[in-house]
Amino acid sequence: MSDLPSKISITEEGPREGFQIEEAAIAIEDKIRLIDALGSTGVSSIQVCSFVSPRLVPGWADADAVAAGFTPQSDVNYTALWFNQKGLERALQFVDRLSLLGCIHVCASEAFSMSNLNRSRHENLEAMREQTRAHQNAGVSVDKISVMAAFGCNFAGDIEPSSAVEAVEDAMAIADEHDASIQEIALADTMGWATPGLTTRVIAEVRSRWPDMPIRLHLHDTRGLAIANASSALSLGVERFDSTVGGLGGCPFAKHKGAAGNIATEELVLLAEESGVSTGIDIEAMIAAGHLAESIIGRTLPSAVLRGGSLDRFRAKARDKQAW
Amino acid sequence: MSDLPSKISITEEGPREGFQIEEAAIAIEDKIRLIDALGSTGVSSIQVCSFVSPRLVPGWADADAVAAGFTPQSDVNYTALWFNQKGLERALQFVDRLSLLGCIHVCASEAFSMSNLNRSRHENLEAMREQTRAHQNAGVSVDKISVMAAFGCNFAGDIEPSSAVEAVEDAMAIADEHDASIQEIALADTMGWATPGLTTRVIAEVRSRWPDMPIRLHLHDTRGLAIANASSALSLGVERFDSTVGGLGGCPFAKHKGAAGNIATEELVLLAEESGVSTGIDIEAMIAAGHLAESIIGRTLPSAVLRGGSLDRFRAKARDKQAW
Repeated sequence: MSDLPSKISITEEGPREGFQIEEAAIAIEDKIRLIDALGSTGVSSIQVCSFVSPRLVPGWADADAVAAGFTPQSDVNYTALWFNQKGLERALQFVDRLSLLGCIHVCASEAFSMSNLNRSRHENLEAMREQTRAHQNAGVSVDKISVMAAFGCNFAGDIEPSSAVEAVEDAMAIADEHDASIQEIALADTMGWATPGLTTRVIAEVRSRWPDMPIRLHLHDTRGLAIANASSALSLGVERFDSTVGGLGGCPFAKHKGAAGNIATEELVLLAEESGVSTGIDIEAMIAAGHLAESIIGRTLPSAVLRGGSLDRFRAKARDKQAW
Repeated sequence: MSDLPSKISITEEGPREGFQIEEAAIAIEDKIRLIDALGSTGVSSIQVCSFVSPRLVPGWADADAVAAGFTPQSDVNYTALWFNQKGLERALQFVDRLSLLGCIHVCASEAFSMSNLNRSRHENLEAMREQTRAHQNAGVSVDKISVMAAFGCNFAGDIEPSSAVEAVEDAMAIADEHDASIQEIALADTMGWATPGLTTRVIAEVRSRWPDMPIRLHLHDTRGLAIANASSALSLGVERFDSTVGGLGGCPFAKHKGAAGNIATEELVLLAEESGVSTGIDIEAMIAAGHLAESIIGRTLPSAVLRGGSLDRFRAKARDKQAW
């Protein structure tokens, strides 16, 4: 475990990922309450909403009201997600409170590209070219590449690490054409196919091709291995992770009714902090935000830490008892 | 990951661990149905029941009927748990169908020993001396040492790896006094304090003291890290694990209402098999047993694989689609 980083940076995606998958409508004020609770946990970045078609993702029809309504904290970076020109235009309304940066989204699986984006990988690259131009025309830098289905696909089966690398190469070519300076490669295990060994192999292949580029991991816990994959990535020195409080979310297009969501933020924080890796996050505040999320969506979330509590809580109790 | 073993052996403890914690009474025939379903999964060992005081563990008042009722498979090793002379005598009634081997149970935490066993660690050693003699007098070999709270304790806080080693030393001394040939050291993360780094340290310390002794891990998923700990242990070549189908169970004495149970068998199988480590278990049969367990206890179990399905299932679907 000698390559453990001294600290990691977590992007909390609970609001965006979580509320897109819930079947019942969540009130705007509840979404805002969760975002504001998360803003007080010490997390450095929060993805607050998704500017997507209300037809495709009804849960985010109210994205504009949510983006307008939360109370920004000065030390938190608030972001959002969008996939097309219309989404970008909606996001631009909130340039004073959202950190707007463009991303080139690519897919390592042709079958998932068709199913999720409704276009082939080739067609998607054309769309990403257009989108990159549109961002730059609007004064928004494109600084990130994100690879969906980078570790496997419910529709295509196994995805070779070389396919993930090829997807990054396609995106890098678009960035080069447009003089976009890429600062980060995000690898998404969209449907929960990663294992610790595969995580290690994909990271190694991406690093051997782009040695100086920071890697971000976006892990879904579809088959319970997300925390093991995060642990492997930590031991390889990966410093950037997406996660969702309580394990909110999951991909609505992955054909997994009732499947687990993302890696839970408080479990990732526990793993990191207990391994001597700083996250900047107050785990008790994050657990409280997880309980708030549960009360908002009206069901128990998968995070075990929400039930078991932090270790520091029990350490403090044990100390108190000894002091009696 | 170069020390990955070629195969591991899993002891399925779902029936014993699972049914001891459920609040509602589970029918004898349902317990037997689950044991028989597990017997057809390819798992090599199943702990079927606990011969304990019905006053302390009401869920196992019917242990004798369950032990008498299941249908043994010829290639499966059926075991049980007991903690005193009375339990041993009950177990001895089933010597034709249960594999009876004695265990020296020790505790790395004084506070948990008092809370769980209602005696100090010193008093427990005296009890273990007596119990070892009683087993040998009954013709039952004592071949295992098991350390409770080996990684931390909700009552005492952190447990140093040296305390786990001392607990093993105490047990080894009892074994030596009685010419008992110990074949295995089991380390139990009774309250979910282990992390991948701590797992690695404790295994290293135990191995440096007893280099040739096989180590077994008994992991609880109280804080969501069990699969990450198992992954670390696998990469160190650990070949023996306890687990429970669906993640049944949890320790009723750990003061964790609603806490997660053990590491889920099907998640451990997925991790191992997808890492090239053979388990001998048919994951689809184990998932079916998990759904049966859910129907018996009347609630959803924590295992993500029960929701997400195996990867092989999706691989087969993808192949079928390509073959059209």
